[in-house]
Amino acid sequence: MNETPAGTRAIDVIRVNGSRRSADADRVAAEEPLEIRLHGRPFAGIMRTPGADRELAAGFLLSERVLRDADELGTIEHCRDRDAAGDGSPENIINVTLADPSRLDALLSARRNVTTNSSCGLCGRTTIQSLASDVGPVRSGLRMTAAALVACPHRLRRAQVAFDHTGGLHAAGVFSADGDLLDVAEDVGRHNAVDKVIGRRLMRETLPMSDTALFVSGRTSYEIVQKALYAGVPVVASVSAPSSLAIELADAMGITLAGFVRGDDFNIYTHAGRIQA
Amino acid sequence: MNETPAGTRAIDVIRVNGSRRSADADRVAAEEPLEIRLHGRPFAGIMRTPGADRELAAGFLLSERVLRDADELGTIEHCRDRDAAGDGSPENIINVTLADPSRLDALLSARRNVTTNSSCGLCGRTTIQSLASDVGPVRSGLRMTAAALVACPHRLRRAQVAFDHTGGLHAAGVFSADGDLLDVAEDVGRHNAVDKVIGRRLMRETLPMSDTALFVSGRTSYEIVQKALYAGVPVVASVSAPSSLAIELADAMGITLAGFVRGDDFNIYTHAGRIQA
Repeated sequence: MNETPAGTRAIDVIRVNGSRRSADADRVAAEEPLEIRLHGRPFAGIMRTPGADRELAAGFLLSERVLRDADELGTIEHCRDRDAAGDGSPENIINVTLADPSRLDALLSARRNVTTNSSCGLCGRTTIQSLASDVGPVRSGLRMTAAALVACPHRLRRAQVAFDHTGGLHAAGVFSADGDLLDVAEDVGRHNAVDKVIGRRLMRETLPMSDTALFVSGRTSYEIVQKALYAGVPVVASVSAPSSLAIELADAMGITLAGFVRGDDFNIYTHAGRIQA
Repeated sequence: MNETPAGTRAIDVIRVNGSRRSADADRVAAEEPLEIRLHGRPFAGIMRTPGADRELAAGFLLSERVLRDADELGTIEHCRDRDAAGDGSPENIINVTLADPSRLDALLSARRNVTTNSSCGLCGRTTIQSLASDVGPVRSGLRMTAAALVACPHRLRRAQVAFDHTGGLHAAGVFSADGDLLDVAEDVGRHNAVDKVIGRRLMRETLPMSDTALFVSGRTSYEIVQKALYAGVPVVASVSAPSSLAIELADAMGITLAGFVRGDDFNIYTHAGRIQA
């Protein structure tokens, strides 16, 4: 994938309009892991769009109260040593030093039990390759018609009780191959809405979800596809855009990824064979 | 704040339309911290909309590979003991036991250096009250006209280069009191876009940002307001909805919070005095 303009990646897409399909080129938002190190020791990993990485790390560390102002910052720069990068790429690692290194041990030990907004399995711990050997691709003979897929957004929206009152909640819906809504959850967090519908399946002992499609109200990131993978969901779709890494993961793991499902139109990014005219 | 319908909170709002202002009642998405414990020991904290907490915890632990299927789950229930809850509320704590407790120590020690999607200072570590004594409210004499505020979305959108190509990137913009765009960042993550513009200020040694407004393209969560607080930003605004906890934090910390900035209209949720006709 090329990287022009900044922050985007060129991808291939199949555009569907009713019964018509055409191959096209498109661009999606770039998403890659960034590892933030303090004096060379791992501190945090976040998924981000490359660009302004030093600024991102500085702002992130301000929010984490590692830095409170510029005086506390020593240096902040990308990893320059491919050996020190380990499994990662030097351009995806930022090393930060503190003006007062005596604070380092206390900061790193306070990281234990740090709160997380949502799970992120990639950065530093896992790569798409190791996910492939650990979990293996989704196996499912599910087929879904384009008509069933384009019915999902309206059916999901109709089930969003709290959204009607607030305009502020994301939703995740589980659909059958025929486009029937089987379950829905709402949350201020997109990832949480997905965790709620998948967690309900786990508790009911009905994993893997090989015969369902997952529809999300927001953008499709790497993490959303990863959650679908662990639950064995073969089709992930959204009214909005996927990220570059979401597409890469779906492609590697046998997951059909669709986006911009609006009216009779949508895009298919990976494994288009499951969606039929 | 009342909690009907589920997942929402009743709030007071000032609706602005051009030079007209009116007080009104509204509803916003509920946001509260959830602490997930394994056998009574802290494992993770996430911000979520209350409801389906057990399902959320189960799905979260599936994504974290703590659970791989229902057989590995022992029990999953809210904390019933106010003493065991410590500083938190029992309804905001879920305790999970594993069918095989011998995995517990390995799972908890692997949590060190866990990756985080974005920072979250509330859950377990900090409350709004302790933030108030640690950081203190934002001090700023900034005044902004309604006309300057409603100009922000268009100016931010015009600066979003990568969004034009992908439809998939969030943006954060720093604006002057006159509504001039001073800086912008884009990212697949809403929090990252905010960290990038604030981090750039930190690196340039121009914190606190007492004379600026922060405009975000997405919804305003607790974490977005917390980032603004640490950077000393007096006005936070968005084209979309705030969460209940974002409003509570902004109210406690002297931050003006505006939402649904669309056309000539917007809502003010807190500290309306900074926005003038």
